[in-house]
Amino acid sequence: MGSSFGRRFVVTTFGESHGAALGVVIDGVPPGLRLDVAAIGAELARRRPGQGPLTSPRREADEPELLSGLFEGRTLGTPLAMLFRNHDADATPYVEMKELYRPSHADFTTEARYGVRDWRGGGRASARETVGRVAAGAVARQVLGHAGIEVVAWVEQVGTRRAGPVDVDTLTRAEVDASPVRCPDVSVSSTMEADIIEARRDGDTLGGVIRCVARGVPAGLGSPVFDKLEADLAKAMLSLPAAKGFESGSGYAGAARRGSENNDPFVPGPDGLPRTLTNHSGGIQGGISNGMPVLFSVAFKPVATVFSAQTTVDVHNQPHTLAARGRHDPCVLPRAVPMVEAMACLVLLDHWLDRPLPLNDAPETP
Amino acid sequence: MGSSFGRRFVVTTFGESHGAALGVVIDGVPPGLRLDVAAIGAELARRRPGQGPLTSPRREADEPELLSGLFEGRTLGTPLAMLFRNHDADATPYVEMKELYRPSHADFTTEARYGVRDWRGGGRASARETVGRVAAGAVARQVLGHAGIEVVAWVEQVGTRRAGPVDVDTLTRAEVDASPVRCPDVSVSSTMEADIIEARRDGDTLGGVIRCVARGVPAGLGSPVFDKLEADLAKAMLSLPAAKGFESGSGYAGAARRGSENNDPFVPGPDGLPRTLTNHSGGIQGGISNGMPVLFSVAFKPVATVFSAQTTVDVHNQPHTLAARGRHDPCVLPRAVPMVEAMACLVLLDHWLDRPLPLNDAPETP
Amino acid sequence: MGSSFGRRFVVTTFGESHGAALGVVIDGVPPGLRLDVAAIGAELARRRPGQGPLTSPRREADEPELLSGLFEGRTLGTPLAMLFRNHDADATPYVEMKELYRPSHADFTTEARYGVRDWRGGGRASARETVGRVAAGAVARQVLGHAGIEVVAWVEQVGTRRAGPVDVDTLTRAEVDASPVRCPDVSVSSTMEADIIEARRDGDTLGGVIRCVARGVPAGLGSPVFDKLEADLAKAMLSLPAAKGFESGSGYAGAARRGSENNDPFVPGPDGLPRTLTNHSGGIQGGISNGMPVLFSVAFKPVATVFSAQTTVDVHNQPHTLAARGRHDPCVLPRAVPMVEAMACLVLLDHWLDRPLPLNDAPETP
Amino acid sequence: MGSSFGRRFVVTTFGESHGAALGVVIDGVPPGLRLDVAAIGAELARRRPGQGPLTSPRREADEPELLSGLFEGRTLGTPLAMLFRNHDADATPYVEMKELYRPSHADFTTEARYGVRDWRGGGRASARETVGRVAAGAVARQVLGHAGIEVVAWVEQVGTRRAGPVDVDTLTRAEVDASPVRCPDVSVSSTMEADIIEARRDGDTLGGVIRCVARGVPAGLGSPVFDKLEADLAKAMLSLPAAKGFESGSGYAGAARRGSENNDPFVPGPDGLPRTLTNHSGGIQGGISNGMPVLFSVAFKPVATVFSAQTTVDVHNQPHTLAARGRHDPCVLPRAVPMVEAMACLVLLDHWLDRPLPLNDAPETP
Repeated sequence: MGSSFGRRFVVTTFGESHGAALGVVIDGVPPGLRLDVAAIGAELARRRPGQGPLTSPRREADEPELLSGLFEGRTLGTPLAMLFRNHDADATPYVEMKELYRPSHADFTTEARYGVRDWRGGGRASARETVGRVAAGAVARQVLGHAGIEVVAWVEQVGTRRAGPVDVDTLTRAEVDASPVRCPDVSVSSTMEADIIEARRDGDTLGGVIRCVARGVPAGLGSPVFDKLEADLAKAMLSLPAAKGFESGSGYAGAARRGSENNDPFVPGPDGLPRTLTNHSGGIQGGISNGMPVLFSVAFKPVATVFSAQTTVDVHNQPHTLAARGRHDPCVLPRAVPMVEAMACLVLLDHWLDRPLPLNDAPETP
Repeated sequence: MGSSFGRRFVVTTFGESHGAALGVVIDGVPPGLRLDVAAIGAELARRRPGQGPLTSPRREADEPELLSGLFEGRTLGTPLAMLFRNHDADATPYVEMKELYRPSHADFTTEARYGVRDWRGGGRASARETVGRVAAGAVARQVLGHAGIEVVAWVEQVGTRRAGPVDVDTLTRAEVDASPVRCPDVSVSSTMEADIIEARRDGDTLGGVIRCVARGVPAGLGSPVFDKLEADLAKAMLSLPAAKGFESGSGYAGAARRGSENNDPFVPGPDGLPRTLTNHSGGIQGGISNGMPVLFSVAFKPVATVFSAQTTVDVHNQPHTLAARGRHDPCVLPRAVPMVEAMACLVLLDHWLDRPLPLNDAPETP
Repeated sequence: MGSSFGRRFVVTTFGESHGAALGVVIDGVPPGLRLDVAAIGAELARRRPGQGPLTSPRREADEPELLSGLFEGRTLGTPLAMLFRNHDADATPYVEMKELYRPSHADFTTEARYGVRDWRGGGRASARETVGRVAAGAVARQVLGHAGIEVVAWVEQVGTRRAGPVDVDTLTRAEVDASPVRCPDVSVSSTMEADIIEARRDGDTLGGVIRCVARGVPAGLGSPVFDKLEADLAKAMLSLPAAKGFESGSGYAGAARRGSENNDPFVPGPDGLPRTLTNHSGGIQGGISNGMPVLFSVAFKPVATVFSAQTTVDVHNQPHTLAARGRHDPCVLPRAVPMVEAMACLVLLDHWLDRPLPLNDAPETP
Repeated sequence: MGSSFGRRFVVTTFGESHGAALGVVIDGVPPGLRLDVAAIGAELARRRPGQGPLTSPRREADEPELLSGLFEGRTLGTPLAMLFRNHDADATPYVEMKELYRPSHADFTTEARYGVRDWRGGGRASARETVGRVAAGAVARQVLGHAGIEVVAWVEQVGTRRAGPVDVDTLTRAEVDASPVRCPDVSVSSTMEADIIEARRDGDTLGGVIRCVARGVPAGLGSPVFDKLEADLAKAMLSLPAAKGFESGSGYAGAARRGSENNDPFVPGPDGLPRTLTNHSGGIQGGISNGMPVLFSVAFKPVATVFSAQTTVDVHNQPHTLAARGRHDPCVLPRAVPMVEAMACLVLLDHWLDRPLPLNDAPETP
């Protein structure tokens, strides 16, 4: 269970890292959308491994095979299925670890849950599962484009290096992609890059933080109780492999302020709707978007596969020492940027499709 | 929409802060449970306002009226409904603000979403909505007790004051409740209390951080993709009023470490299952519990109701100055402790009820 | 589980027949609706027992107490909760049957499922549970009114008596209610009435068939695969107590025809959309409404409570003879008319709220 | 939307009749199941077209390509995806009808809903969509086998021909398949076959009725309110293409009986649980299984594709005369037998997985 996400734009992924194929089925795609398939491919290329020294050397084309839901270039409103065959899976390094639980991986917990496990490369827990999410996010992004919503994420921190302030009103994805690390602060980007290469050389890994902005989100998306916009964003982000933290707006820093400092004063906006002078709320108040940029961050732990010797146990609860093998990223952050964006697109579109429709006798909106 | 939470233990809340009543319906309560109704009341008493200088002076008994689902002291497996009548609602202070949007409140966003709003005290966005959650959490806690799972939360930070380390293996709720702030570090608790009283005197408010531990969680709860245990916890916590951040295990701090430092080495455990030497994972690996204590934190922004003059606009987009009125907490943290625990209980029970059942021909678990 | 119905207009009922109260929570009510509370009461009055010799003598006012979701006469878009206290519950006749399984009742199956049972009057399986459904249906009907959709059901058959043809284009609920049996064929209605009274005198009961029409349903409601409009209607109807059959359009009779006879030829309609010359499809083709009246029927078995001696067993699997007691309807059909209408309104509104919204670049509709 | 079915064993289908491929993803497959892939193929062979004069001549191998969820012969508990490529799609005959609405097909309603349509062979509304359902049903059947549940359906009526009584306690699928029409009453089967061939010769089509029994269903499956076992069966069956009626147990015939005739008396059963002397309830009382065979029927309208000239309109609301072309079945009944069985398996397994688990302090079951 748990392989579907969303209530109105429902994304279901399937596939194991070293199985025959991975894929995604999207139910709830608005009909009549002229789908830009190349744009899906471009988004997948950002997520793909084998992009250089910062990523895993595994080579997968990750070109989506569209199986359904599209006819004469337009979406039918029926499920859109996309398939990704595995071409460069290599289970060899995992054979010797098949009875060992790699520390801070999902090996043990998968077996605890299911009593059975595909030990080749992480199976379903592999970050490779996100290929379908990114493809679905690319479709969602196209629908959001019709609503004037755009989403940009970037690397804010790698290890202990932090980028300086970024202009969230103007930052483009091209600016982000100009950096191999996907950090738009050029003064820090190359240091981050060097840190990652150094960690790789040490057989070690780094974590970090991604920040994301969604611009053009109209006021009124989100629901006031359990399905708050930030609650759904939090779930979406914590569902990404290696994600361990989430902040909406001023997050943990805001928790240390007084209310008089942290509140966002309203001023009249040019479109007849209020704007806020500050945006500590991160564009969300009471779980509902207020028309300001939606801002949040996601913390990723360092990749669990390290090459130094680690203490562990095997499936018989016997102690072992393990120096991991297998292809992996020394730092997941650069490739996590499109993953964060994809999940943000899924959440925003789901809420956009879920906004209440006006009744004829409804009162005027403010 | 969005008033229900959970897939197997489904909690639906209803009611506005100043309406006739609030309530909760729980579908999926295991049948045959000998329900301790007094324990529900005790949990509600922890959440109740009017507890002293740290909380809102509104006086509500918040004793649950059980309407259904219980017969001769046992749950029937049918929906358990509980009702809470509002006795001390006073809409007077809100009349003068009915056309104003209080900064960082949900007034504007509610109207943006629905085109209509109950302006009396926050309506559905009020923290008063959580009375039903806490009652449902108290039921969930009783079921979890049968599974040997217990949940304890405490205040770790108020404003800029932080508690020292806490022994998460032994901390009790009685120790937490011994402090009016619900901070078990006695050396810090009274300072926090003084800070809150000072903020209240200034007409200002404070935020903070709550930490929570769940002990006795068996390995194998959670799902590997979207419904990761920490993803569902993140959603649950960010759905609480004023929550703006979430960390699972080492969270943002772990993002700054190297993999070799942050990994949790496995060692043989006494019950034939592995344990970890450290617990940076917070008891969750690959989204699934590993048998170690589940650990997470939640950041709460300072309460938005401040008495100093703030810039804002009215429903006609005209500028105003507002000094808020109405009863409120100067700091939500002490009362948020039972809310965090309640949501944690709901998530844990939902996953516990959702674990796969063995088939007869299933292989032996490790 | 299973106490909620609908995906967009989500109705959750709670309460046992002889418990403190029954109720309903509706999530997804469109905001800004000027709710006619008296109309809800009027609909409940049609369902109420104690209406005369054809129904159970139990006397319940069944006036809804609105607890939430309404402010200054308009819906807030938040959950609408309605409560119905039990005033005339009398468990006395059930004491002697508490260890017996009444034939064709839910006594044994409830215990098989839950291991525990409220033996007072059927508990959750009682037709009394439908009070919340009818109240929710009355709300749905008001929203459907804004969309120009109206729903009328009537009794077509009682025992072996069948009404003659009815003009489904013009039949009104007033015409239906003019008959105590709710059969608009006046030549048959009084015979049906006499049959019911005779069955009651014999300590016996009757079943029958209800037919229902929904007019003004626009083309395009329903989904082509699992959530076909007729599939959801079938589920809704079979979820009513004592319902055992469902037909959409020509149903079982159509199964005996050839395709050339059963097909509905299209002709140009006055509004630029096609109409059909016949309506064997019952207004639904491929699971989606085609703009013609939606027509279906529901078969109800005779009430299981009969006063003649019946063979049965007790909870210890020992044989017994049972002559049932307790207040009940000799024929559920007259009171089932508002139940069928309510469920039809819930399904139609759910699909109406679920129709795809146009994108800006969508092609012109035909 | 609406392409998923089930709450615990969740089946999602995708694909258009003349698109690249169709497929199914199953989430919630119990882990550790030794999957018999050949048995899935055998079930698909029963559904396949091209089986002789009674079915469409379209030739599709319909061998499932398993993409995920299986490792070393056992299910992983992760999504099981199966793919079916279209090999013999031929859109030629549909070109001339692309702007015409075929009577009683889904052409018009699809366009009314989505504003766009794949006119090649029915798109998503084609019975070809059921290939994924049958594959999923074959997986569900294997799990049900572990629970001792077996499902057998057969053709009871074709046009106006009806089979005689069948022994539902012993009927096997082999006996059903021995008849080309899948009617186990050999005295009627050959007449039905001749009728179908005659209808085909006339360019016409026939409908009919399928009956189904599920044996070994334990008492206690189903939920007492909306998710009654028979309500979910009704939805499942009415979601099949061309299905227009459903009866549970004695259905419409029971509606004409008195309660004293229709009730099922209980007698002590050999296993300590009651049995019923008759089975008018069809194994379901109050929506919950009672341990007796579950019995229901489904009515199918005649196939809408007839070769005689029919009145219709085009997408511009202009009148036309249409003699349909395209490959189709003259009678869907023989191939609908595995479809009905598949949907029954999905419903039964879903409820079996959803039964409440005992708590330690639960009272003894009766």
